[in-house]
Amino acid sequence: MLGNTFGRVFRVTTCGESYGAALLTIVDGVPPGLKLTNEMIQEELDKRRPGQSELDSPRKETDKVEIVAGLNQEGYTSGAPVGMVVYNVDRQDIHIQQYRDVKDVIRPGHAEYTFFVKYGGFADWCGAGRASGRETVGRVAAGAVAKQILLREGIEVLGYVKESYGIRAREMTFEEIKANYRKNELNCPDPEAAEKMIEKILEVKAAGDTCGGIVEVIARGVPPGLGEPVFDKLKATIAHGLISIGAVMGVEFGAGFEAARMKGSEFNDTPYIENGKVRFRTNRAGGFLGGISNGEDIVVRIAVKPTPTLSLPQETVNIRTMEPTTLAAITRRDATICPRIYPVAEAMVRIAITDALMMARGYEGLTEKDEIWRRLRE
Amino acid sequence: MLGNTFGRVFRVTTCGESYGAALLTIVDGVPPGLKLTNEMIQEELDKRRPGQSELDSPRKETDKVEIVAGLNQEGYTSGAPVGMVVYNVDRQDIHIQQYRDVKDVIRPGHAEYTFFVKYGGFADWCGAGRASGRETVGRVAAGAVAKQILLREGIEVLGYVKESYGIRAREMTFEEIKANYRKNELNCPDPEAAEKMIEKILEVKAAGDTCGGIVEVIARGVPPGLGEPVFDKLKATIAHGLISIGAVMGVEFGAGFEAARMKGSEFNDTPYIENGKVRFRTNRAGGFLGGISNGEDIVVRIAVKPTPTLSLPQETVNIRTMEPTTLAAITRRDATICPRIYPVAEAMVRIAITDALMMARGYEGLTEKDEIWRRLRE
Amino acid sequence: MLGNTFGRVFRVTTCGESYGAALLTIVDGVPPGLKLTNEMIQEELDKRRPGQSELDSPRKETDKVEIVAGLNQEGYTSGAPVGMVVYNVDRQDIHIQQYRDVKDVIRPGHAEYTFFVKYGGFADWCGAGRASGRETVGRVAAGAVAKQILLREGIEVLGYVKESYGIRAREMTFEEIKANYRKNELNCPDPEAAEKMIEKILEVKAAGDTCGGIVEVIARGVPPGLGEPVFDKLKATIAHGLISIGAVMGVEFGAGFEAARMKGSEFNDTPYIENGKVRFRTNRAGGFLGGISNGEDIVVRIAVKPTPTLSLPQETVNIRTMEPTTLAAITRRDATICPRIYPVAEAMVRIAITDALMMARGYEGLTEKDEIWRRLRE
Amino acid sequence: MLGNTFGRVFRVTTCGESYGAALLTIVDGVPPGLKLTNEMIQEELDKRRPGQSELDSPRKETDKVEIVAGLNQEGYTSGAPVGMVVYNVDRQDIHIQQYRDVKDVIRPGHAEYTFFVKYGGFADWCGAGRASGRETVGRVAAGAVAKQILLREGIEVLGYVKESYGIRAREMTFEEIKANYRKNELNCPDPEAAEKMIEKILEVKAAGDTCGGIVEVIARGVPPGLGEPVFDKLKATIAHGLISIGAVMGVEFGAGFEAARMKGSEFNDTPYIENGKVRFRTNRAGGFLGGISNGEDIVVRIAVKPTPTLSLPQETVNIRTMEPTTLAAITRRDATICPRIYPVAEAMVRIAITDALMMARGYEGLTEKDEIWRRLRE
Repeated sequence: MLGNTFGRVFRVTTCGESYGAALLTIVDGVPPGLKLTNEMIQEELDKRRPGQSELDSPRKETDKVEIVAGLNQEGYTSGAPVGMVVYNVDRQDIHIQQYRDVKDVIRPGHAEYTFFVKYGGFADWCGAGRASGRETVGRVAAGAVAKQILLREGIEVLGYVKESYGIRAREMTFEEIKANYRKNELNCPDPEAAEKMIEKILEVKAAGDTCGGIVEVIARGVPPGLGEPVFDKLKATIAHGLISIGAVMGVEFGAGFEAARMKGSEFNDTPYIENGKVRFRTNRAGGFLGGISNGEDIVVRIAVKPTPTLSLPQETVNIRTMEPTTLAAITRRDATICPRIYPVAEAMVRIAITDALMMARGYEGLTEKDEIWRRLRE
Repeated sequence: MLGNTFGRVFRVTTCGESYGAALLTIVDGVPPGLKLTNEMIQEELDKRRPGQSELDSPRKETDKVEIVAGLNQEGYTSGAPVGMVVYNVDRQDIHIQQYRDVKDVIRPGHAEYTFFVKYGGFADWCGAGRASGRETVGRVAAGAVAKQILLREGIEVLGYVKESYGIRAREMTFEEIKANYRKNELNCPDPEAAEKMIEKILEVKAAGDTCGGIVEVIARGVPPGLGEPVFDKLKATIAHGLISIGAVMGVEFGAGFEAARMKGSEFNDTPYIENGKVRFRTNRAGGFLGGISNGEDIVVRIAVKPTPTLSLPQETVNIRTMEPTTLAAITRRDATICPRIYPVAEAMVRIAITDALMMARGYEGLTEKDEIWRRLRE
Repeated sequence: MLGNTFGRVFRVTTCGESYGAALLTIVDGVPPGLKLTNEMIQEELDKRRPGQSELDSPRKETDKVEIVAGLNQEGYTSGAPVGMVVYNVDRQDIHIQQYRDVKDVIRPGHAEYTFFVKYGGFADWCGAGRASGRETVGRVAAGAVAKQILLREGIEVLGYVKESYGIRAREMTFEEIKANYRKNELNCPDPEAAEKMIEKILEVKAAGDTCGGIVEVIARGVPPGLGEPVFDKLKATIAHGLISIGAVMGVEFGAGFEAARMKGSEFNDTPYIENGKVRFRTNRAGGFLGGISNGEDIVVRIAVKPTPTLSLPQETVNIRTMEPTTLAAITRRDATICPRIYPVAEAMVRIAITDALMMARGYEGLTEKDEIWRRLRE
Repeated sequence: MLGNTFGRVFRVTTCGESYGAALLTIVDGVPPGLKLTNEMIQEELDKRRPGQSELDSPRKETDKVEIVAGLNQEGYTSGAPVGMVVYNVDRQDIHIQQYRDVKDVIRPGHAEYTFFVKYGGFADWCGAGRASGRETVGRVAAGAVAKQILLREGIEVLGYVKESYGIRAREMTFEEIKANYRKNELNCPDPEAAEKMIEKILEVKAAGDTCGGIVEVIARGVPPGLGEPVFDKLKATIAHGLISIGAVMGVEFGAGFEAARMKGSEFNDTPYIENGKVRFRTNRAGGFLGGISNGEDIVVRIAVKPTPTLSLPQETVNIRTMEPTTLAAITRRDATICPRIYPVAEAMVRIAITDALMMARGYEGLTEKDEIWRRLRE
């Protein structure tokens, strides 16, 4: 508990479980005067919705979102917190019973055991409860709000599958990626790589197994100077947000772990002046200096582990009987989580950047002003 | 914005406006293993519901609450945040139009002007938007969750009308108050005083005017040692919560402002030993020493201003035309807010105490443990 | 613990005890480009320093402050947190021994008992430890930083003794108060009242007793729109800050508790237009509407209890022997705390306003920009 | 600004710059009754002190720490925040002048440029100011406090150099690492690898260049169930803390980025029962399930970039003249930061775990109780 809020001045609070009635999202700190519609939120939610291809879980959730608070009568944000509701619709008794049947058996690689221990045995065992990937609905809904703020500031954020089960997309420019990343179900902008990836995933799936990959998120247009030293550098809050997503095993910026094998003379990005502004000839630092945005593209990658739910039987234990047992997939599962995790990663990066932006400018600095207001105040 | 969360480890986040679709409440930090039902929340919401007597607004809201998150399949809290939804049902076009007609006219004593300025002209003008008393639905819903936690710890909190338009209830013991405070529409435990108060309120109402009063909240059973020095003493967080309620002009503890006129020898509460515990012979300090609970009853009073909406025409200005004008009540109004503010005050005191309790004991210290958990962990 | 930080984006963190080595203050969120010197801090600290008149404690502390962090080489704030150190110099063994002698005896009206219970018996018993008024050194130091920010924005905050042991200063304009409040040791702007107050205090002191009073703080020049609904309204955060000061029994804004006895038609402040801006003809609301600043003077009063330490012997208990006993003043004491609490109250109001201002504008909105920066960024 | 506090209920606040007067650290939320001495803090600070070998900067700082607040008269923590002061002693005019000479020249790979932009040109340019590695003194001091709390709970945390400029230590057990990691100046437990690493570093250094590496931190004895879903999972707060350290380019847990290339059947850790407790046969997840500790060793690695300051001249720009220029090392530098970053990484992991522990148990759950307290309360 206590960890269901993210952001300091652009603050996202979520609740809701896999088989609960609804998922609620409250976004506090939304600057006033922003046009916001259900469709804008829905567009993002639809990216992470299950059942869209044979790569992911067949659970049928519509993820239909309704903004129920925070808009004025004209449909603009009013400065009040934005509230959003998504009802869970695919909660059949048969699935609940399937979870009940194995509720005392630890599902390898899943969070139920740690939640069980943490919450004195009262954690919701149904579909992983709060530990389910369904909690990311709230992240994506909030990220969609952040997206509108960022777009107004000229900041674009996109995430895509960079690598899947060892197959890596080739290096591409931001423009190439942007033009191609939404063209296949994997959200991989390199069509040749994507084809091989999908082939491999289906092969793994057919064998009852699962696999992971690497997702990259790029943020373009972020002004230099964002993030709060020394603990809340933008780099650190982005990492926090990304590692908090289930299945993420690591995060790296720019050259990432390769930086550990480079010399200073190879790694440092060289500054130069372009149109009166400071730029950097390379971007091995991934858009940061001292953890603060430097105006170059923010480039961050996350390592995604293979989905833990297999069709293959796995050894495990029953904590009621304290006996060893085996377990195969209970109900529905994703062969790989990568094509569904990228919108969540986008959302977390957006939220972290928006929070840093709000910290810098305050909500006044990000607020549109109406005509009467100007007459009265200026 | 940014101010829609209260509490540090028992954290309440709310959203929703007077004429928005719904009011959402998320309570994070609820200890697991607590039985929680819609009825428990409804009971508290029903206390603050409008339209219950001729003393208050005729707006017809059912305030029907649904817990949509945070419970496990057996109906116990799971450690996940508790989410609650209340839909606004009385949102007729006629009322919205009435507000639209005067949206550029400052309503004296109301918050629209400051919200307008704060939010660049985009604040919701309909029924005061987020500044409406309807936001207190979320406070009361969250307070109802806190209540269940406190009851398990033997802590009782009750609020009642101590004074109304200058008429004061007589001094009564906690037991007397508890036995009598729910017996009339004013929630005043002294029947003679209550009768006079109601008579006076109706007289004021008949004249198109409004009045205020004083609400007292008592918390019994609070263990000594709660609250965090030096800034988040329990006394300070309770004051924060109470002053954040609309219409509250002041707060005082124990002897309150009278303490300013006493000598030290008159004011100090004398400690003594009773059954091996430290007690105090008097309670002029109102349950605190150094702002930390001392084990005696917490006694706090708030001054409630008269409701600003009058039937009488009031001088004001139109900010669009910049011309003086007059304004009488737009739609519906309360003659006095006291009988509706007491459950909100109770809620804020409960939330502040629960937060302090959680800070002291952690959620583990407040968690029931199930049998398998005990076998596995102890 | 956990309560030693105040403010959300202008954040003050303090530590230090009555007889510890030093008091540290860290102020995070100070906008860059502000000239800041030791003298500016010292000026405020000198207001609350003990031993300045026969009204207060003879403890001799120089309260010499040194800014050790947060300034650049030119003496301007750099955006890094400002760190300040004040060493305790009057820590004689004789006084420590005096406290040791009675460490198991509850001092009536003091916080040692609740701190003892809270901290498992490990609280510092020497001179009240962290519960001592000496912790307010950090508040005042931080308030002095806030003062410089506010002055740059044209915001003035002043506190004075309004009432002492029942004797009240007459009503005065802000200009009168400002011209006269620093002219006597009580910091009361009404010279006739001040004379009577001092006479009375000395009388009470001579009898071995103590007394309290009422301190008023006025903030002029606060722009409308500050504070964050619904929980962190400026009114609520100011109340939080003030009630967190030891010895404060209540807080009220504008008409305060009197509002409870007024009719709506008597209470509401009437808006009008002056020079194209909205003003209010009266200020019974004390500078707020809906808890958000309305541009009028913020007016807040606190009730200060009589100092608990008497020369007269008081009944109490020894918690080691569990026997009743009596206790008189241990070492040094103040006859009234009012003339020393006003700078602390000023500080808390300043910090709360600065925090709200930073929340609204961000640090960018409050930052001076140097010439190279402008050339590079604009 | 605003980012100088880490932790939610065990809260570390720091200030201080490279060439400021002192570095202050305030740790709030320290449980009472803990023996704490200057020596305990010094021991950790000495690990990160510069000038200890030819691998790092010759700056001579004694880093002598004094605890000035938070201890009672017997030397135990009192529940009040712990305050620590470290004065900077090596601040010679010659070095300040060297920095002044190039203050308008961007140092490639350093944070001055982003700090300059962020703070309107007022950031401290001397020795990187707040962006200097010297800020980590505060992290390590706070980590030393956390260490004492963790030791009492049987939790051990150790960090060591796993890889340096591509040379990797062999896989070793926790016991082997613990027995050997403090034996050389690199803090690498594999003596053969360490020898090669040092040789290579000196070679790189001789060429005027620098290099990086990988540091691993292991935490043993962490109870299962720590961390707060969904955003403040322990895994996420550890990542936040580690990425906030300067020079860190990535973080990975357990199998880390390798997990992206594994199948589910290869990755999942198999649970089994050992002595009535749940254990896992492997630890590819690095001590977590769902981001919550699972009772196995927490294993986390960070990628450290090569130190940006080279002796070799680097191309860059002067932001005052807007002309290209070149820059070599200004004063003193580290050939590799790895042997100095490991104690900082240890500190951040300790702080994050302690914070999670406090959140779970509250300070009461971690407080020793004295005899009188027990008699009075139990």
